[in-house]
Amino acid sequence: MDKKRIVIALGGNALGNNLPEQYVAVQTTSKAIADLIEEGHEVIISHGNGPQVGMINNAMGAYGRMDPNHPTFTPLSVCVAMSQAYIGYDLQNALREELLNRGIEKSVATVITQVRVDEKDPAFFNPTKPIGPYLTSEEAIAAIAEGMQVKEDSGRGYRRVVASPKPLEIVEIGTVRDLLTAGEIVIASGGGGIPVIRQGNHLKGVGAVIDKDFASCLLAKELNADFLIILTAVEKVALNFGKENETWLDTVTVEEARQYAAEGHFAPGSMLPKVEAGIAFAESGPERTALITLLEKARDGINGKTGTRIRLN
Amino acid sequence: MDKKRIVIALGGNALGNNLPEQYVAVQTTSKAIADLIEEGHEVIISHGNGPQVGMINNAMGAYGRMDPNHPTFTPLSVCVAMSQAYIGYDLQNALREELLNRGIEKSVATVITQVRVDEKDPAFFNPTKPIGPYLTSEEAIAAIAEGMQVKEDSGRGYRRVVASPKPLEIVEIGTVRDLLTAGEIVIASGGGGIPVIRQGNHLKGVGAVIDKDFASCLLAKELNADFLIILTAVEKVALNFGKENETWLDTVTVEEARQYAAEGHFAPGSMLPKVEAGIAFAESGPERTALITLLEKARDGINGKTGTRIRLN
Repeated sequence: MDKKRIVIALGGNALGNNLPEQYVAVQTTSKAIADLIEEGHEVIISHGNGPQVGMINNAMGAYGRMDPNHPTFTPLSVCVAMSQAYIGYDLQNALREELLNRGIEKSVATVITQVRVDEKDPAFFNPTKPIGPYLTSEEAIAAIAEGMQVKEDSGRGYRRVVASPKPLEIVEIGTVRDLLTAGEIVIASGGGGIPVIRQGNHLKGVGAVIDKDFASCLLAKELNADFLIILTAVEKVALNFGKENETWLDTVTVEEARQYAAEGHFAPGSMLPKVEAGIAFAESGPERTALITLLEKARDGINGKTGTRIRLN
Repeated sequence: MDKKRIVIALGGNALGNNLPEQYVAVQTTSKAIADLIEEGHEVIISHGNGPQVGMINNAMGAYGRMDPNHPTFTPLSVCVAMSQAYIGYDLQNALREELLNRGIEKSVATVITQVRVDEKDPAFFNPTKPIGPYLTSEEAIAAIAEGMQVKEDSGRGYRRVVASPKPLEIVEIGTVRDLLTAGEIVIASGGGGIPVIRQGNHLKGVGAVIDKDFASCLLAKELNADFLIILTAVEKVALNFGKENETWLDTVTVEEARQYAAEGHFAPGSMLPKVEAGIAFAESGPERTALITLLEKARDGINGKTGTRIRLN
C-alpha cells in the first residue's frame, strides 16, 4: 500500500493521570503507532497534556510558595514545555522499544515545540480549557482564592480552566520537517505546543494551553500530511449520541460535518473540537483525510475499515 | 576561516537559580554562541542542570506528598527530562532571537536526550553530584530524614548529592546528527542527559544526574567534533590556582594535563572534571581540541587567542 504521512493526535487523558498510568498508556499507544510505522507510513505524534500540565503547574506553584520571603513563579508556558518532556521522554522510549521488538531501527525524537498565538485572541478573556485534576468544592474555592479560574465540569466536579487560543504558527516546523526527511518518527507540538506571542523577533510565553486537536490540525496542514488521526474514546462519531436513534458516521463531507455540528450533535469541549479540527484539516485540500477513531482502530481506519472520515468531498 | 564543528558545554549554575535569572543568562549565552554561528561554525549546545533539576525534584516531591492517601513520586530521571525542556525552551528561544537580530535564519532545536549508563557503575554507591539549592543544617537534617543524601559543600552550606555515573552512549545521537546535517543548531544531552540503563530493548530511567562535562565529551566524540568548549568561571586553567606562583595555561598536551591533574592542581568537583573531560576528548584524536575558558571568550578561544587548550600533542 501507499506510504502516507500521518499526524496522530493523542489525548492527554489517554496518557493517564500519573506516571505509573502513563507508563502503561505509552506502551499501548506505541503498539498502535508501531502498526502504522510497520506498514511503511511516516508518523508524527502530537499529544494533549491537560492532566499533566495541571499537575506540573500545581507542583511548581506549591513549591514556589514554600518560601514566603522568596516566592518563585513558574509561568504556565514553562509548565507546558516541561510537560512535553515529561510525556515525550516516556513516549519516545516506549515507541523506540516497541519498534526494536519488531526489528525496526528508527530514531524517535521529541522536539520542544513553541506555537504562536494571537495576543488579541478572544480566548484570553474566556478561559475554557480544563487542566489538572478534578477538585472538590473546597479545593475549588481555594484555587479561586489564589487567582485561578475554576469551572464546574459536567457534574464530575470542578476543574481549573485556562485560556485556549487558536494556534497560528508552529515555530519549530522546520525541525519537524528536517527530522521527517531524515526518516525519523517525531513527537512534536506536545500539549498543543508552548503558547507564545510574537514581539518583533522575540517570542514571549503566555499563560494558556492550546487545544491539541487544533494544534495537530495546523501541524498536519503545515506538513502536508495525508491523514490527521484524532483519537477519541469511541470507534466512530455519532449523530444523536447515546439516544435511541444514534447513528454512527463512516465518511462525511466537510459540508455534512459542519451541518451536523450546527445541529448540535457534538458535545462542546468533547467531540465538537475534534470534529472542528477534522473539518479544518479536510477542507484544506482534497487529498487530506481527517480520521476520528479509537487508538486501537487507527490502522483499520487508515485502511478504510472503520472510524469516521471527514473529507472535502 | 574553516568551518568547525563545536560542542559547547554550559554550566547549570551559569544558567541561574531561577527563571528570571535564567532568562537573563540565556541572552548573554546566546550572544556568545551566535558569535560562533556567525563565523560559520556548526554548534551543538549541551548544558548542566544542577540547580534546576534539584528545584524540579523538590517541587515534584513536595507536591507528591501533599495528598498522604495518594502520594505520587516523580523519579529523578523524569525530573532530568523536565529540566531539559525547562532550560531548552528558554535557550532555543533566546538563541533564535539573537540569530534573527543578526539576520540569520536558522532553526534551533532542543532534543530530549537519554544517555545510557552502567547499572554497576560504582558512582551509584558513592553519590557526589550536588543538585538543588544550598541547605541550612535544619533543611539538611530534614532532607536526610526523607532518605536523601546530603554533603557539606566547601563551607558554603549543605547540598543534596546524587549518583553521577559515567555516560556510555547517547541514545538520540542519530537525531542530533540528522539535525546537524540539516543545518540546525542543536541543544542536546541537557543536564548530562536522562540517565537510563539498558534491559534488553528497554531503557529504564535511573536515579542519577550525569556530569554534563563527561556527557558533552561523549557527545563531541560521537559527533566527530573539532572542538569541545567547556565553559567555566575563569579565562584559563591555572596551576597553583590562587597561590603566589599561579600560572595560567595556554596549550597543554594530554600527557601534561594528566600530570598536572595527578599533582593535584585541579579541584575535585570543580576544575578537575572539566580537565578530565577535556583530556578524554583530546586524546580521542589528533584533530580534536578541548578548550576551557569563559563564555565571553569562546570565539577568541576558538581563534587561538585565549583559553586553555588541551590537545593530543
